[in-house]
Amino acid sequence: MTAAVSIIGLESIGLIKPGDDLSKIIFESAAFNNVQFADDDVVVISQKIVSKAEGQLVSIEEIKPGGRAKEYSKKIGKDPRLVELILRDTSRVIRAEKRAFLVKRKDGLVCLNAGVDKSNVEGKKTYALLPKNSDHSAQTLRSSLQRLTGKKLAVIITDTYSRPSRVGQAEFAIGIAGMQPIVDYRGKADLFGYELRYKYVGLADEVAAAAELVKGQGTEGIPVAIVRGLPRLKKSESRNLSKKLLLGQQKDLFGRLL
Amino acid sequence: MTAAVSIIGLESIGLIKPGDDLSKIIFESAAFNNVQFADDDVVVISQKIVSKAEGQLVSIEEIKPGGRAKEYSKKIGKDPRLVELILRDTSRVIRAEKRAFLVKRKDGLVCLNAGVDKSNVEGKKTYALLPKNSDHSAQTLRSSLQRLTGKKLAVIITDTYSRPSRVGQAEFAIGIAGMQPIVDYRGKADLFGYELRYKYVGLADEVAAAAELVKGQGTEGIPVAIVRGLPRLKKSESRNLSKKLLLGQQKDLFGRLL
Repeated sequence: MTAAVSIIGLESIGLIKPGDDLSKIIFESAAFNNVQFADDDVVVISQKIVSKAEGQLVSIEEIKPGGRAKEYSKKIGKDPRLVELILRDTSRVIRAEKRAFLVKRKDGLVCLNAGVDKSNVEGKKTYALLPKNSDHSAQTLRSSLQRLTGKKLAVIITDTYSRPSRVGQAEFAIGIAGMQPIVDYRGKADLFGYELRYKYVGLADEVAAAAELVKGQGTEGIPVAIVRGLPRLKKSESRNLSKKLLLGQQKDLFGRLL
Repeated sequence: MTAAVSIIGLESIGLIKPGDDLSKIIFESAAFNNVQFADDDVVVISQKIVSKAEGQLVSIEEIKPGGRAKEYSKKIGKDPRLVELILRDTSRVIRAEKRAFLVKRKDGLVCLNAGVDKSNVEGKKTYALLPKNSDHSAQTLRSSLQRLTGKKLAVIITDTYSRPSRVGQAEFAIGIAGMQPIVDYRGKADLFGYELRYKYVGLADEVAAAAELVKGQGTEGIPVAIVRGLPRLKKSESRNLSKKLLLGQQKDLFGRLL
């Protein structure tokens, strides 16, 4: 007996514009690619196309930087209007350097530039913000996709992160709907009856990383993948599921930094 | 057209003992599971069974702790003999606390307890060390598996890591043979001709995380998975490939900590 997981990339999604019906586009792209949705499929979507469909695009030419933005701007060498845009989504600046503007966002996510990003966004001065509420976006997409397909699905919205002491970025889950983000092994015994060290698996983050394997061109050549056959998938109808992956500072092994 | 990656877990590997021929066991388990190897398959193997086959098992009852081990032992609340064992593989202690004994190993890897671990190891006082040289172990396994299967393969040996600010662990690559560990997008243009932010993808780490999706029970219920169909797989015959994923302190966004 073998356990098998498939990761199917959906090509021909095309460029997404504000106001586009993303679930319909994903549904039609799957049909075009002869991919049938199945119960328990996890639809993994790159953040950028969600932000675009939701119109989370801002030209910094519309932004007036405040004093704090101007100060950070000098320190980190970024346009003060861009810094202003980043600070609007930020609750705390963790590190302000030329190579890294690391912040804690108002929604709790720790990331570079509050996720504000230029790549694959049209317009010289236009940036994409993260979705306003990525868990909510995932829920909405899940509902529409379930309606269109008639299948029970989960949805993960992913973004890119840098890791300490490791070269190369990886994808992680910033919005989740329909599935438990963590596998909990607490109290389970190992093969010899001792308690397992491996207590929680960050399943949703591993699914996000796995989906990136079929993507490319900065995750946006193929911005949607279906992950099928997860043996440990557990459904959840809870809200704010991505928050379960956020570690409080006190419990964080790297906590002094953050 | 769709891009598809498959992750196939090999069940019935059984318990591994020192001296076991791991490549033969993997080959036979695949045959038993009716899995045919194919060119460009990546065989992803959990570290623990490699350590066991190589006899990297130590009972701390044989260990005499030195003064430094005794000091750390008081601070972090671990058996001084275990601390001694950890320090033998350590070049620098990064954080010594009850909740986390974070070190940089002599081979450059930053991890908890230098990777010395109890789970799924038989014997109340017996611990597994990491393989002596995980890249070398991956090369040896790759050679034997290529000989047995007649296919061109890559091999990744994985271990578990904790991430800053995120709940739940994930797998990463500690030994690599036969493939480039990183996808390099430097200088590539995005969909609109701007330079991509996403410059390096930690491909081998994403493959390690993906393989965990079919594993279970602390990665050792199914300790081997085949990852097939990677569109960006690039061969490499270089040695020490896992070292390419190690970030020097100066370039590390989290560098002040580490």
